[in-house]
Amino acid sequence: MRVAVIGGSSATDQEYEQARQVGELLGERGHEVVCGGFGGVMEAVCAGAREADGHTIGILPNEDRGSANDYVQTVIGTGMGNARNVLVVLNGDAVIAVDGSTGTLSELGHALDIDRPVAGIGTHSLEGIEHVETAEQAVDYVESAVQ
Amino acid sequence: MRVAVIGGSSATDQEYEQARQVGELLGERGHEVVCGGFGGVMEAVCAGAREADGHTIGILPNEDRGSANDYVQTVIGTGMGNARNVLVVLNGDAVIAVDGSTGTLSELGHALDIDRPVAGIGTHSLEGIEHVETAEQAVDYVESAVQ
Amino acid sequence: MRVAVIGGSSATDQEYEQARQVGELLGERGHEVVCGGFGGVMEAVCAGAREADGHTIGILPNEDRGSANDYVQTVIGTGMGNARNVLVVLNGDAVIAVDGSTGTLSELGHALDIDRPVAGIGTHSLEGIEHVETAEQAVDYVESAVQ
Amino acid sequence: MRVAVIGGSSATDQEYEQARQVGELLGERGHEVVCGGFGGVMEAVCAGAREADGHTIGILPNEDRGSANDYVQTVIGTGMGNARNVLVVLNGDAVIAVDGSTGTLSELGHALDIDRPVAGIGTHSLEGIEHVETAEQAVDYVESAVQ
Repeated sequence: MRVAVIGGSSATDQEYEQARQVGELLGERGHEVVCGGFGGVMEAVCAGAREADGHTIGILPNEDRGSANDYVQTVIGTGMGNARNVLVVLNGDAVIAVDGSTGTLSELGHALDIDRPVAGIGTHSLEGIEHVETAEQAVDYVESAVQ
Repeated sequence: MRVAVIGGSSATDQEYEQARQVGELLGERGHEVVCGGFGGVMEAVCAGAREADGHTIGILPNEDRGSANDYVQTVIGTGMGNARNVLVVLNGDAVIAVDGSTGTLSELGHALDIDRPVAGIGTHSLEGIEHVETAEQAVDYVESAVQ
Repeated sequence: MRVAVIGGSSATDQEYEQARQVGELLGERGHEVVCGGFGGVMEAVCAGAREADGHTIGILPNEDRGSANDYVQTVIGTGMGNARNVLVVLNGDAVIAVDGSTGTLSELGHALDIDRPVAGIGTHSLEGIEHVETAEQAVDYVESAVQ
Repeated sequence: MRVAVIGGSSATDQEYEQARQVGELLGERGHEVVCGGFGGVMEAVCAGAREADGHTIGILPNEDRGSANDYVQTVIGTGMGNARNVLVVLNGDAVIAVDGSTGTLSELGHALDIDRPVAGIGTHSLEGIEHVETAEQAVDYVESAVQ
């Protein structure tokens, strides 16, 4: 399946490592990653997925495909600003959120609105999200929820 | 100024009345209303604004201008589905949320993300939102925040 | 009805005057104008419509409502770049094109694609467009086509 | 590079074969294909590219990734209707048009508007397009134009 991974464009070392692990696990288990294509959590998850040979997709708010992080294989530019947020979650069968601020909050709202299963690690506390502690728990959850 | 009013497409009698009062106050004080153009809170705020001769704008997820509620004066169709949510909050100088579910949550995320002042009546409890109890407090808040 | 008026963001004196006349006639006959909100033909049609007390809507590619021309009454920001072009024609019951370059060409394509009647004055020569010479012929055509 | 290939969603046998050849050549020469993801020319170019092991991307107007043709490897859903047309051309470094109707016309307008080199085989006759007869001429042109 394809999993949308969302989170802050800047990340602490711990958040970066958790997102990297999410990506690595998704790659190992044969899943694609879609994200917003920039830095922080988005970069970490792509870096992890690439280590495990997973396919990574980044959907950018701007038009400049060159602005994606180095670990995005398939870059989609939009030039649509924040309206791209809905495209990120729409293009996953499930969503994993790692930390994240207001942009991530908008994506969580969209994800719940279109009934995507969502696992969250250290993210906004919202009804409808499965709050977990580890990358493995997050990936396990979205796998079971999509089955 | 122009105020984006967001909230559920179905509303209890109490929520409807609160949204109607928000609209009436905005109209009386010379402000425009922009909303998602459908029912529930969106209809109530437009109905209230029209009573006070305020201008009402509805930005629809679909293309069919005829599907807007009866109190929208200027209907904008988009055919863009949930991507229209960001347009609603983007087109207000400030935001008032009345109740609301996951769609409203995505709009609150977008509103905070683009630094709009937000007053909330019975809506999601989120950092950065001014939680108030009455329509008057909500309108007072957004007026003072935009000044 | 509401008529989308499209054309170049820079205009010769003659094009400006023709677009102004289109706006004036639309206003006199009780129609709304929707356009891209910027200069040239977009400004001219709004200026003309306002002389006749018609309502003018401008849908901008950017988010900055302050960047609209002075004759737009209801400004809608989008922040969606060229994806806003389809919104302009979508929001008219019919389309009038005055001159125009590649942006206008994309709008003409969208207009024909969603079956809007289109009158053109000095614009791209395309099958499906009613090519006319005067503002009055253009307005007459869209009125008869929408009836 | 990545080439956006546009054209009608229904295609004659000859158009289908030309689009298939375009895809095959692009794949052989190491280029990615991006298209609208549906049938006709879009299917043909993806089928051709896959024969030559090229990567194919389809950007859909709807949200349903399952509605893409069988030869799209990376499907992007949008739910944005015709506003997705601009995304298709935006995501190519150059554009090849095979035949096509009004939707294709809107894409050609967008492509010229954002200065993409465009080769056309049997498509709308427009200034700024390099009109050619064969798949090889089209691919040669976009390769030389992007260099």
